[in-house]
Amino acid sequence: MVRVVLPKASPSARPLPPADPIVPAPAVAIPDQLSAFSSQSPRDRVMCSRGRAYPDLLAGFAGDHVGAADLVTRPRDAAEVSRVLEICEANEWSCVPFGGGTSVVGGVDAALARGGRAATVALDLAALSGVYEVDQTSRLARIGAGTLGPALEQELAAHGLTLRHYPQSFEFSTLGGWLATRAGGHYATGPTRIDELCHALTTVTPRGVLATHRHPSSGAGPEAARLLLGSEGALGVITEAWMRVVPKPRWRASASVAFADFHAGVAAARALAQSGLYPSNARLLDATEAKLHRVREGGTSVLLIGFESADHPMTAWLARAIELAKDHGGTIVSGPTESDSASPSGGRAGGEASMTSAAGAWRQAFFDAPYLQSALLSIGILSDTFETACTWTQFPELHARVVGAVSRALDETCGGGLVSCRFTHVYPDGPAPYYTFVGELRDVSQWRAIKAAASDALSSAGGTITHHHAVGRTHQPWYERERPALFGTALSSVKQAWDPRGILNPGVLVR
Amino acid sequence: MVRVVLPKASPSARPLPPADPIVPAPAVAIPDQLSAFSSQSPRDRVMCSRGRAYPDLLAGFAGDHVGAADLVTRPRDAAEVSRVLEICEANEWSCVPFGGGTSVVGGVDAALARGGRAATVALDLAALSGVYEVDQTSRLARIGAGTLGPALEQELAAHGLTLRHYPQSFEFSTLGGWLATRAGGHYATGPTRIDELCHALTTVTPRGVLATHRHPSSGAGPEAARLLLGSEGALGVITEAWMRVVPKPRWRASASVAFADFHAGVAAARALAQSGLYPSNARLLDATEAKLHRVREGGTSVLLIGFESADHPMTAWLARAIELAKDHGGTIVSGPTESDSASPSGGRAGGEASMTSAAGAWRQAFFDAPYLQSALLSIGILSDTFETACTWTQFPELHARVVGAVSRALDETCGGGLVSCRFTHVYPDGPAPYYTFVGELRDVSQWRAIKAAASDALSSAGGTITHHHAVGRTHQPWYERERPALFGTALSSVKQAWDPRGILNPGVLVR
Repeated sequence: MVRVVLPKASPSARPLPPADPIVPAPAVAIPDQLSAFSSQSPRDRVMCSRGRAYPDLLAGFAGDHVGAADLVTRPRDAAEVSRVLEICEANEWSCVPFGGGTSVVGGVDAALARGGRAATVALDLAALSGVYEVDQTSRLARIGAGTLGPALEQELAAHGLTLRHYPQSFEFSTLGGWLATRAGGHYATGPTRIDELCHALTTVTPRGVLATHRHPSSGAGPEAARLLLGSEGALGVITEAWMRVVPKPRWRASASVAFADFHAGVAAARALAQSGLYPSNARLLDATEAKLHRVREGGTSVLLIGFESADHPMTAWLARAIELAKDHGGTIVSGPTESDSASPSGGRAGGEASMTSAAGAWRQAFFDAPYLQSALLSIGILSDTFETACTWTQFPELHARVVGAVSRALDETCGGGLVSCRFTHVYPDGPAPYYTFVGELRDVSQWRAIKAAASDALSSAGGTITHHHAVGRTHQPWYERERPALFGTALSSVKQAWDPRGILNPGVLVR
Repeated sequence: MVRVVLPKASPSARPLPPADPIVPAPAVAIPDQLSAFSSQSPRDRVMCSRGRAYPDLLAGFAGDHVGAADLVTRPRDAAEVSRVLEICEANEWSCVPFGGGTSVVGGVDAALARGGRAATVALDLAALSGVYEVDQTSRLARIGAGTLGPALEQELAAHGLTLRHYPQSFEFSTLGGWLATRAGGHYATGPTRIDELCHALTTVTPRGVLATHRHPSSGAGPEAARLLLGSEGALGVITEAWMRVVPKPRWRASASVAFADFHAGVAAARALAQSGLYPSNARLLDATEAKLHRVREGGTSVLLIGFESADHPMTAWLARAIELAKDHGGTIVSGPTESDSASPSGGRAGGEASMTSAAGAWRQAFFDAPYLQSALLSIGILSDTFETACTWTQFPELHARVVGAVSRALDETCGGGLVSCRFTHVYPDGPAPYYTFVGELRDVSQWRAIKAAASDALSSAGGTITHHHAVGRTHQPWYERERPALFGTALSSVKQAWDPRGILNPGVLVR
């Protein structure tokens, strides 16, 4: 199923860029009205002009900052955000909302956003940071959109709470970015996508402020927040949100189960997703993935199963999950292990120390992966990921097509390489398969060819173009194929009503 | 907290209307293009012209059908739905999509929809009925929008499946109606609102057909289906949907817990909602509600706790839920009871026979209530309900204001009456309180006064104007207060793009 022609390091790897980036002179000066909170330093301009998609990384390594934003503005409240939008609208400048800049799909690109306009303004939300208010009874926290993952968790921890949302970009991405791109969290089931964690949000548009009504649930018309979730900076600037938070988990229970046949593992993951047990982890790794992430050698697929609770031990839950996995031909290779962070024996490192070694290895590898990508790039190895979601019925065909298409593309563009698969999330109606490919790097056209082959394959097999990487510019052609034409019309109509000059992140989502 | 001045039956109750309704002559003839599937019989016209809001019931009892639809059309496929919209648009007739006609908020009103137009067409979806396709592996079923609850469940049962969605109107309402009004199901937590059960849907608008992409989840832009869910017939006609279905539950476990103090019961319900146990039932009834629904006498509040699973016994889940209830001062008054519908002892009536008597009494009373309302009306007693959702923090103040305002309104308009409260759904961030009021009937102005008092009170205390009764015409003024102005602009823009002549359910949602 996977091709194991490991790539050789390329001798053509470029040297690191100089410390002081070289940028063109800004096309415009900082307007007086924005001078108190704006910058044109080369470093600020470079840091807020791109995301972390493969072409972004290549350009960064090459020191190519030709299209850098003309100015970076860091408004300190919603009124200053409004002022930025006013100025941009009056001058017809492009305005690119900037969170952590971790888009892997070309969602942040000052050069492309400029188009034919006189200037691009990067609207950096870094100053709208912090946990502003906590409601312990209702388990809610009002948080600034510019808050980075670690700061957010640290502030919540002081209240004994957590948002429990860990996208892979956690360290460098922000709440506002998660909301604008409908980020997926680390957990496999239950409330894990940022949408489900959002109680209410505030967005500033060129035509005013939109604050959604605060309620746990409502049947009053279409849900307003759902139009902003996934709007990718094209409809407004999310400034803050009331988020659903929870106490830190106390009890953990986990096990790892191996399957000789990947599709037996798929059936086990499906049974778990449809069981009503709501595991926090139900991650199926194919044999290559298990090996790459240092979870398991030996050519078998592995299903990592984990449960967490702040309320009760998860013994019965894990026992039933293991039964289901065994029913589908699985063999336990690690665990079952349980821990209670409040008990002396289980309290080490908040219960993490007693996680099964396979799950622990996985977790570490998960957060290491983006660093590894950059390291590989610096020695001339192309490594990237893409993901989708489809029904359980569609999956076998989709998987075969994707692996076939990407393998062929790697052969053609890199002279070989490898592709691996894991499930990041599982739903009763289908999995979210996540693919990694690795090959020898020559130039960005290779990456484009492989991405196109992968996107064509998954799209033609019925998968969505992205489960949690957003649309940006990279996925736009396939997004437009899967988006109902009339929904495209609806988005354009809303954009016309809220942003009639089209200044917000031009070229993204609405063309 | 509740006022127990029981109303007297009024001698002014009106006689039942004659069997053949008297309707005005239709303003227009049936166009040739619609003749194969349309009717102007008085019975059809009357049956598809109103919902079941209090003013609808009063008008029905009085035999007042002055504003009946001019014609009823029953398209047999999406192409015929498109044809109806074409004809309506060409003639500028109003078109009111009609599912089961159970709106309790004036969402179906042929007379008001007509406004100044030449005619109103009721677009009855009854012919788009049935389960068209089942995907057992992915647990999905493609179902016609006009399918009534019982037919839907009967057809799914042949596949061993259920939608597990039981709004109180279940017998008489349709899938399309549930989707268009974001119906709430019978279950207290987990996937219970129809939105969460919807995998994909197809909608016909005057500008074409919109079929959302099929996927278990996606991060590609704002979710298209969410713009149609809750659109109340004002943006398009939902014709069919892929719904998430499940096997029939096999294991059930339940108990009832009494609380001397209502707010101790509230705290227990909150603990349960925040526990991660996902009970299918977590219904708190105040003392009046417990008495009215024949669950319990004696002046205590009751929390009905229930779990269901098709996969595993719920012993551990119920045990922890009972612990939580006891921690908050509750006393078990019924159960714990468990059943397994596959075992000989627990198999009677699909496990229902061994439900606790309190839960069984509740369930029966729940489905009897709408019949009771009509029966009470016929003997001159006003009885109606309203509901909301708010945060746990807001609830005590909201509850006090609502009970106070409704009691005063009952005093002023009916010379007394009673008001009771239950929770229909509980979320980690707040409950959905549901209120019933009963008083002596004089005329519809009483009802309007009480509804206004209740709506003002809950709205000013931060509650949403409706958790699952939709907006219709009754809630429109309060909906417009809670809806962000810019979201209203967005809906108007989409309406303008999809329905430029404004023929679809005029006056509802978008004005």
